[in-house]
Amino acid sequence: MIRTIVWNEFVHEQENDLVRSIYPEGIHATIAEALAKDRGIVASTAVMPEEEHGLTAERLAETDVLIWWGHKAHGRVDDAVVERVVQRVWEGMGLIVLHSGHFSKPFKRLMGTPCSLRWREAGERERMWAINRSHPILAGLPGRIELPNEEMYGEPFLVPEPMETVLISWFEGGEVFRSGLTWQRGAGRIFYFRPGHETYPTYHDGTVQQILRNAVHWAKNPAPAWSDISDAPNVPVEQAPEKIEVKGGSLHRPGEEGYR
Amino acid sequence: MIRTIVWNEFVHEQENDLVRSIYPEGIHATIAEALAKDRGIVASTAVMPEEEHGLTAERLAETDVLIWWGHKAHGRVDDAVVERVVQRVWEGMGLIVLHSGHFSKPFKRLMGTPCSLRWREAGERERMWAINRSHPILAGLPGRIELPNEEMYGEPFLVPEPMETVLISWFEGGEVFRSGLTWQRGAGRIFYFRPGHETYPTYHDGTVQQILRNAVHWAKNPAPAWSDISDAPNVPVEQAPEKIEVKGGSLHRPGEEGYR
Amino acid sequence: MIRTIVWNEFVHEQENDLVRSIYPEGIHATIAEALAKDRGIVASTAVMPEEEHGLTAERLAETDVLIWWGHKAHGRVDDAVVERVVQRVWEGMGLIVLHSGHFSKPFKRLMGTPCSLRWREAGERERMWAINRSHPILAGLPGRIELPNEEMYGEPFLVPEPMETVLISWFEGGEVFRSGLTWQRGAGRIFYFRPGHETYPTYHDGTVQQILRNAVHWAKNPAPAWSDISDAPNVPVEQAPEKIEVKGGSLHRPGEEGYR
Amino acid sequence: MIRTIVWNEFVHEQENDLVRSIYPEGIHATIAEALAKDRGIVASTAVMPEEEHGLTAERLAETDVLIWWGHKAHGRVDDAVVERVVQRVWEGMGLIVLHSGHFSKPFKRLMGTPCSLRWREAGERERMWAINRSHPILAGLPGRIELPNEEMYGEPFLVPEPMETVLISWFEGGEVFRSGLTWQRGAGRIFYFRPGHETYPTYHDGTVQQILRNAVHWAKNPAPAWSDISDAPNVPVEQAPEKIEVKGGSLHRPGEEGYR
Repeated sequence: MIRTIVWNEFVHEQENDLVRSIYPEGIHATIAEALAKDRGIVASTAVMPEEEHGLTAERLAETDVLIWWGHKAHGRVDDAVVERVVQRVWEGMGLIVLHSGHFSKPFKRLMGTPCSLRWREAGERERMWAINRSHPILAGLPGRIELPNEEMYGEPFLVPEPMETVLISWFEGGEVFRSGLTWQRGAGRIFYFRPGHETYPTYHDGTVQQILRNAVHWAKNPAPAWSDISDAPNVPVEQAPEKIEVKGGSLHRPGEEGYR
Repeated sequence: MIRTIVWNEFVHEQENDLVRSIYPEGIHATIAEALAKDRGIVASTAVMPEEEHGLTAERLAETDVLIWWGHKAHGRVDDAVVERVVQRVWEGMGLIVLHSGHFSKPFKRLMGTPCSLRWREAGERERMWAINRSHPILAGLPGRIELPNEEMYGEPFLVPEPMETVLISWFEGGEVFRSGLTWQRGAGRIFYFRPGHETYPTYHDGTVQQILRNAVHWAKNPAPAWSDISDAPNVPVEQAPEKIEVKGGSLHRPGEEGYR
Repeated sequence: MIRTIVWNEFVHEQENDLVRSIYPEGIHATIAEALAKDRGIVASTAVMPEEEHGLTAERLAETDVLIWWGHKAHGRVDDAVVERVVQRVWEGMGLIVLHSGHFSKPFKRLMGTPCSLRWREAGERERMWAINRSHPILAGLPGRIELPNEEMYGEPFLVPEPMETVLISWFEGGEVFRSGLTWQRGAGRIFYFRPGHETYPTYHDGTVQQILRNAVHWAKNPAPAWSDISDAPNVPVEQAPEKIEVKGGSLHRPGEEGYR
Repeated sequence: MIRTIVWNEFVHEQENDLVRSIYPEGIHATIAEALAKDRGIVASTAVMPEEEHGLTAERLAETDVLIWWGHKAHGRVDDAVVERVVQRVWEGMGLIVLHSGHFSKPFKRLMGTPCSLRWREAGERERMWAINRSHPILAGLPGRIELPNEEMYGEPFLVPEPMETVLISWFEGGEVFRSGLTWQRGAGRIFYFRPGHETYPTYHDGTVQQILRNAVHWAKNPAPAWSDISDAPNVPVEQAPEKIEVKGGSLHRPGEEGYR
């Protein structure tokens, strides 16, 4: 069983009638329901208003894959929670970042780049093309996926070169965008998936739902959490794999911690 | 002419007799002198005690490549200066991070990973092997470079997969380390170079000096600064490359800024 | 069940007493036995003397992962069989290339580089360091793996930048080598694993055997074979996703095949 | 001075009136003229009908960057010449592959993948988007480049993940394509550039010409040719960087060559 949390800032659904009409229980609820159709996935949700945004250390420690949707409230996400999420990704938790989550704090933190792009809200047609149609994230899906109405995101998308370019989008208005990208960071796998503007029913689409389920399977790292991944341990001379003797001067006293 | 700043926290040289004896004017001075042997490089220096650490917006705007040495005082580097450096790298400024700079704030910020490693201060022999001996950073140098005494850094080194693995080190005590790695982030090129522990005269070594000069040439991006790289501009419907009409609902009013 | 073939040229074991004493049934038999300890793997073998080297189209079509060991007889492998193997990798068959297989025809063909390296047969100590200890290929294994006697392979290893550097080796004689590397080619995953010189009992080592089993799991692509991956189909104007009209001159008549 | 050869199979211009009307002297002549506008570039040409296709070992040895245009006659290119070109790329010669050259023998050989794609000859509009507008290949150019009439190439394009995705194309008929991609192979840099169908005047376009000039500068490796890059030299025990003694059995007699 893959343990997931679908996280949503849960703001638009409460402030905007159109969004609420599409996602009456919240985007997170619709996505979680889609994930739960897969008997190998345990889908839970968390939203910003919960204490610690619903992402306590205990809960994250028991999470295999985190799905992130945010837009209007990126700035209100607590930095301590962000660091906790980032650390868990390094330890091996998978992370799926959706649509406007390109500007979310955890994603920007993990990319180390601006994560900027161009955009237009015109409900235009988007057509995603598979670069590798045999990629696990596209299992069972055609090499060409159309969404009748979506927000346009246009290149340049300021992220590091990905491990794999999985999908590239064509937009009716003339732009292109790398809509499905993967990265490895520490022991964690990251998938960015472009579609999902809140004013269109994208997460009700069966193909989009299948991509999310596939991505959850892909993002799970079955290895035990690499919990000391951020440590920089000293290897004392007497524990060196090969026998050596100290030469030259030293800065640190034996057993002293390194600087950070 | 390539305009460079050699930045140094400049702490050990004032607190530690051994380090001062090796670098009486500071590590930055030795490196700047080495760079200045190249008539195509303008070498200047900056140290932490200066106002804004010597890295004002004006000065960074006129800098092509920044070289960073820090160790004991990473935590004392001002976050506003770090963000400024990071933004300039995205815009196209080259960055060369040296040795213990693996834990510096700008490097960790740009990598989005722990940047951790293992270490041992035993003055052991380090032998660096060129993976691509025709790489510009190794111009004029042999494929095998030895340093008689260095601190050991051991894998795993927690950084993203690089654009290129340029050098890998063998250590007398039995470890290995990817000692020369490159990344592209936005318009900026980044080179991490491992050697340079402050208790050994590494930056007085002619081969090391040549690598630094080569890296400065490699890291310079001659393109004009990409100063709006972090912007996410709206492309209004009437400016779409292809003529389209708005369909479906919208969240933003015409001309409204996106959320961040 | 993952269907595998362990392929061996099977020459040294018949010509050299030392090799035969270590692998009396052939290297392939030892490896297949090791794989078969995993109940999820079906291990079969094939050797060069068989018709079509034991790699008929029918058999490859039913193979998920091919393991390749060759050394002395690279030049005697039939080019038609090589193309068949390569095509199957593109379609999704995993390929694990062992040790001296770095110079095998299928590997060179898939890499597009010289695949050269330096070597020394001195039975020296090899120590492999995990770069990502949470990688599926290292499941259940320590981050440091020692082999008491191995042939040395030294960098530069002339292969394309890998998708992931999984292991780097330290050698007693002073060299380093990227001992575990992955690539994606078409729908197929490739893993190169360095150890396995025929004069040492490397494939009898439990840790090496575990790496091979792990690699089989990692290399399997569950997607159906991408059998038309090498085709370059014309998309007629009337089947374009968007309605367009022909403009300008054409070279091909409607329905004509492209040139190759 | 960068020494270039613009190579063309030179078939369509002699067999097809339309192509001849656009490129009366051949595509190679138009491109060479465009390169020669840059005073740092020495532009020469070679065509298939010449002896050894105009690509003798002597001439290639004095070439920094080779530009390749072919389409109808890929199959008639001599394999010995192909191997010679490939070896020179490994040694450090830059290679720029144009349009239908995706199926040329040297490109397929260097990629190790099918290099297949989808296509449509309808003279539709192509719009190329810069992913990194500060890349040297795009120096002085806008982030959006339009060609009024081009052949469509559609993804999936079966090549290895590139070092950098420089350009992605949008097509009027609804497809997308990675139109500018870079790879490093050995000491050589490779750039694939999509536009240039022979029935449209693409190489007369000023922006396209600037991209070609820029790419020539980018592709040149100033290092001396790495002429022994395909060798796999033995490192005798007595020349090991660290003093070692032979342990265990050996296959090779001292001084014997390795197998290939």
